[in-house]
Amino acid sequence: MSETELRDGEAAPAETNLDADDRLKPEYVRAVLDAVDRGDDEEARALVEPLHPADIADLIELAPAEQRKPLVAAIGERIDGDVLAEMNDWVREALIDALEPRQLADLAGDLDTDDAVAIIEDLDEADQRAVLRALDPDDRAAIEEALSYPEETAGRLMQRELIAVPEHWSVGDVLDYLRADDRLTTDFWEIFVVDPQHKPIGTCNLSWVLRSPRVVKMSDVMAREQTLIPVDMDQEEVALRFQKYALISAAVVDGSGRLVGMITVDDVVHIIQEEAGEDALLLSGAGDGDINEPIIDSYRARVRWLVANLFTALVASAIIAAFGGAIEQMVALAVLMPIVASIGGNAGTQTMAIAVRALATNQLTRSNTIRTIRREIVVALLNGATIAALLGIGAALIFATPLLGWVIAAAILVNILVAGLAGVLVPVALERLGQDPAVASSVFVTMVTDSMGFLAFLGLAVVSGLVAAA
Amino acid sequence: MSETELRDGEAAPAETNLDADDRLKPEYVRAVLDAVDRGDDEEARALVEPLHPADIADLIELAPAEQRKPLVAAIGERIDGDVLAEMNDWVREALIDALEPRQLADLAGDLDTDDAVAIIEDLDEADQRAVLRALDPDDRAAIEEALSYPEETAGRLMQRELIAVPEHWSVGDVLDYLRADDRLTTDFWEIFVVDPQHKPIGTCNLSWVLRSPRVVKMSDVMAREQTLIPVDMDQEEVALRFQKYALISAAVVDGSGRLVGMITVDDVVHIIQEEAGEDALLLSGAGDGDINEPIIDSYRARVRWLVANLFTALVASAIIAAFGGAIEQMVALAVLMPIVASIGGNAGTQTMAIAVRALATNQLTRSNTIRTIRREIVVALLNGATIAALLGIGAALIFATPLLGWVIAAAILVNILVAGLAGVLVPVALERLGQDPAVASSVFVTMVTDSMGFLAFLGLAVVSGLVAAA
Repeated sequence: MSETELRDGEAAPAETNLDADDRLKPEYVRAVLDAVDRGDDEEARALVEPLHPADIADLIELAPAEQRKPLVAAIGERIDGDVLAEMNDWVREALIDALEPRQLADLAGDLDTDDAVAIIEDLDEADQRAVLRALDPDDRAAIEEALSYPEETAGRLMQRELIAVPEHWSVGDVLDYLRADDRLTTDFWEIFVVDPQHKPIGTCNLSWVLRSPRVVKMSDVMAREQTLIPVDMDQEEVALRFQKYALISAAVVDGSGRLVGMITVDDVVHIIQEEAGEDALLLSGAGDGDINEPIIDSYRARVRWLVANLFTALVASAIIAAFGGAIEQMVALAVLMPIVASIGGNAGTQTMAIAVRALATNQLTRSNTIRTIRREIVVALLNGATIAALLGIGAALIFATPLLGWVIAAAILVNILVAGLAGVLVPVALERLGQDPAVASSVFVTMVTDSMGFLAFLGLAVVSGLVAAA
Repeated sequence: MSETELRDGEAAPAETNLDADDRLKPEYVRAVLDAVDRGDDEEARALVEPLHPADIADLIELAPAEQRKPLVAAIGERIDGDVLAEMNDWVREALIDALEPRQLADLAGDLDTDDAVAIIEDLDEADQRAVLRALDPDDRAAIEEALSYPEETAGRLMQRELIAVPEHWSVGDVLDYLRADDRLTTDFWEIFVVDPQHKPIGTCNLSWVLRSPRVVKMSDVMAREQTLIPVDMDQEEVALRFQKYALISAAVVDGSGRLVGMITVDDVVHIIQEEAGEDALLLSGAGDGDINEPIIDSYRARVRWLVANLFTALVASAIIAAFGGAIEQMVALAVLMPIVASIGGNAGTQTMAIAVRALATNQLTRSNTIRTIRREIVVALLNGATIAALLGIGAALIFATPLLGWVIAAAILVNILVAGLAGVLVPVALERLGQDPAVASSVFVTMVTDSMGFLAFLGLAVVSGLVAAA
């Protein structure tokens, strides 16, 4: 990895602390923690010195919970706002609780509004007030306004620091303005052109400004088409819009169309990643947790789901109980029935995962719902026929009962078909009802495939005369 | 939504074609397709006129497969490289097959190398050669070199178009250079400073250049620390690095450290989204498909998984068969056993989803594996105790058999504990073996929870004396 990063002299050793996948090496983490344990803060600081803020955040996450506070105390001023902004939510929350409002205000004051808000919004109200009181009046006003927007909206994501210029300015005017005023932000990727009401009328990538002679008017350089983000837009929609239109930054406007802030792609990337990765967690019923979530929160989120599944399992059990007589006559039914339910469950989960993803990425809309359902029916028929043939022939041979083979083949075909239908219809129905399909689909789909698996198999066994009716 | 986007005069109606979630309205899609059906190409073109390339790509995806070619023929020159670059892979592939190499070369010639490569890499070899022959020699050389890097690496993602300047230049030199040469790229977000061997030694955000007086040396403006991407780095690693260090663009270097290209965040965002969203699909066994994948490919990907699950279900069935005598004595065992397996499966899936996600985001490393396992054991004990109590008391009451309640309670506790362990250990083990934990974890975890569910429940029923041994 030595050629993969350029660092200045003293920073060079940082490279060796990371493995090939950019993760901190366990030996390194242990060395830092050992130094902290020994009380050798100087050694700990020296070890941490070359790290990027994102890696310091990782280091704190990787430390056991009880060692995090001593670690933070030891490396002191390296814990700045950037480190906090990069940190896992749960770990940050625990850490912030341990800091004084004064210290927090110092950290937050150095940050862009969006990062400061991300830190302050998690505090309880008394702490929030304490931190806000300790901030500069300017910072306080900006952060208070951001906090007035609902959580998870553009208003919380945006930073107030941006460059906006009037239409009649030339490129030269802009250069002079940018060079003259020290207090302007240094991190921006486009310059917004606004009318006298501060409404955006165009935007300039910095590269366009750089390539234009001084005399050219900004109105001749700017693009008039631009994607604007309403300040109350949900952050997931913001992320989809950034992705769809390949945006680097975008202007945020209030209800009357005035420019109030700017969102940059680096603030959106982690939302894109979280929202996309969340589906796997939500579908599994693990909530929005991760390995840093407090155990009691994980327990609450997961046990709720397991109890819900307990009730759906009871429905399936009730169906089996109704066929108790059939099972007593032929214990092979009890041996084979979980296969029908389990394969159906798997087929339903496949379709559901595809449908939930397609809904989340706006691929599955009213325009192609019917077509998608037809498509999934065809896939289900192909899958069903294959598995039915394998399982039917196998069961007929093993149990030397051809009719049993026909019964299980028919049951699995029916269940995979039902699974395919439920796998699309349940998420689509939940979405139309305004629910997040990733959250609730699994319970319903599993209930359908479990119940249908037992019902089809045991029911067909009775109907076909394989066993006598109870 | 009228205030959410600024468009120039003729583009204004575009807004009304999108619903609140930025999806094309079904009425609009139907209107375009109707015009195409009627042969009224002029109307179709007029309707499509105001659309953003990303929305044209969506329109084509939303059209039924058989109507896509007539639609593309009707709206003609609006199908440019940007539209192709935005399009779903499967839809694009089918469409490209219908185009002449000459047409494709025209489209690809207009694009940055990375987008051109994304289109050309999917062609079969004969078509690739035909398209390359039809390209300008410069474009051809750039694309051929990109194609020489393995798929899904930085070399395929990067664009060659970038701005690199020598260290001794001043800001004024850079401005003059950028203003003088028309052939330079207009889309860049940082300027790389290179040494005489073309090795990057620093980087300048454009905003820093804009804010500096002409006389300042680039070496005084640039940051010496920068994240470099090796040209052979896997695209998933590239995406993680962009995310971790909040990059907008980054230099790509070859084996000897020379600057060979640049990757921008907009090319990485869809990888972040795909890789994060992929886990839900892979865990479900739906492969890397989506609703646009050809049916036969979906069938192949999914049936393989169902067959694998058929074998794991057979293992569970064999365990049940071994306890056939017990079930004949007490049919309640057959009624209750799927609950134990199903709840265990759910608990395992929850833990597995968390672990797979933590591995994918580099949160779970060697430094905290043991701690994470301990954590999951505690959560499993809490979940297990809760469900065991509910189910044990319920079963004891309903079947009026206290011992049955104790047996199922013990079995569910054991199975949820085993599920929690398997849910972490299986993904971690697969990752250490160099496998993608999202692909194979489910099969193993399900096999463990199914088998253990039946074995623990039926085994305890025999051991406890609830039923006589077979």
